Amino acid sequence: MGGGDVERLIQMLARLPGLGPRSARRAALALLSQPETRLLPLARAMETAARNVRTCSVCGTLDSSDPCGICSDPARDHGVVCVVETVGDLWALERSGVHRGVYQVLGGTLSALAGRGPEDLNITSLLDRVRAGTVREVILALGATVEGATTAHWLHDRLAEVGPVMATRVGHGMPIGGSLDMLDDGTLVAALTARRPA
Amino acid sequence: MGGGDVERLIQMLARLPGLGPRSARRAALALLSQPETRLLPLARAMETAARNVRTCSVCGTLDSSDPCGICSDPARDHGVVCVVETVGDLWALERSGVHRGVYQVLGGTLSALAGRGPEDLNITSLLDRVRAGTVREVILALGATVEGATTAHWLHDRLAEVGPVMATRVGHGMPIGGSLDMLDDGTLVAALTARRPA
Ligand SMILES: [Zn+2]
Ligand SMILES: [Zn+2]
Repeated sequence: MGGGDVERLIQMLARLPGLGPRSARRAALALLSQPETRLLPLARAMETAARNVRTCSVCGTLDSSDPCGICSDPARDHGVVCVVETVGDLWALERSGVHRGVYQVLGGTLSALAGRGPEDLNITSLLDRVRAGTVREVILALGATVEGATTAHWLHDRLAEVGPVMATRVGHGMPIGGSLDMLDDGTLVAALTARRPA
Repeated sequence: MGGGDVERLIQMLARLPGLGPRSARRAALALLSQPETRLLPLARAMETAARNVRTCSVCGTLDSSDPCGICSDPARDHGVVCVVETVGDLWALERSGVHRGVYQVLGGTLSALAGRGPEDLNITSLLDRVRAGTVREVILALGATVEGATTAHWLHDRLAEVGPVMATRVGHGMPIGGSLDMLDDGTLVAALTARRPA
């Protein structure tokens, strides 16, 4: 309906996580009703992001610069590295404002089921940083899932091999089976504040 | 977080109807993880749509061509015009496949509260078509709301002034307070099949 261009826009919007066919149609209508002030600006923001955003070679987050704004911020504590599964988890922690150190984004967890092994995790730059001796503490802020716990345990052992560093895990507050990205800011603060040695 | 480009993309996505801040972040992450295969194609579909899609000068729907695909389709019955409030309503009827005639998209209803009067409705081309004598029936498929009923009543009188034409209203099936766009196909079929003289 509405010709190929409209149909194509709706179909592509419907593929976005969180948008079903009905909301994709509503979104397309809202955008098409204001092509100059809504549709084109969004298209351009997307092109700019596609051109500029890259993976930080230090921590693995997405940013317009490499190293990212966090890794290159002298006001952050580079001696405390918080290890998270995804960029979404990093964003959740940044929103809460509880962590003033830096990050390492693994890009997932170890998972026999999904066939993800150690070589699939972004850990080289973390081990390098620990080896360099600049890291005092590694906070393992992984999800309270079987995979998260397995990964935290494995990473704890790996870290012990490369250098003397205190590894802690986020503690109380994270619901079992929950993922970091789903927590409210208060729970995040509680979980991080109550961290304990891994 | 993630620098200005990422932040800007999230903020613009969050303004889409149906997407809150959380799903906007999820959508941005999904798009940014695959810039070449997801982000850029969507940006380009948006630019193409912004460039090509316009309002049909006959019926008022959105399409890549003017007159639109429906208005220029000789296989449709141009003697039966279905009047709807929005392009979304037209899309809903097209999905149901129940209407084989053409359309008139009013762009809203009369509303004292919203300050919308007759001059704000897209009806000129409908009255022209009725005056030209090519229209046998006008189906008033407006929402089962006070505004919808008021608009249907007013339009019924307007139509009687410009030419001999049978005006019908969609009948059973539309829940009170409901809008056409929210109906399932079966209800749409029932409503349109049970239409009666206005
Ligand atoms: Zn970084
Ligand atoms: Zn048309």
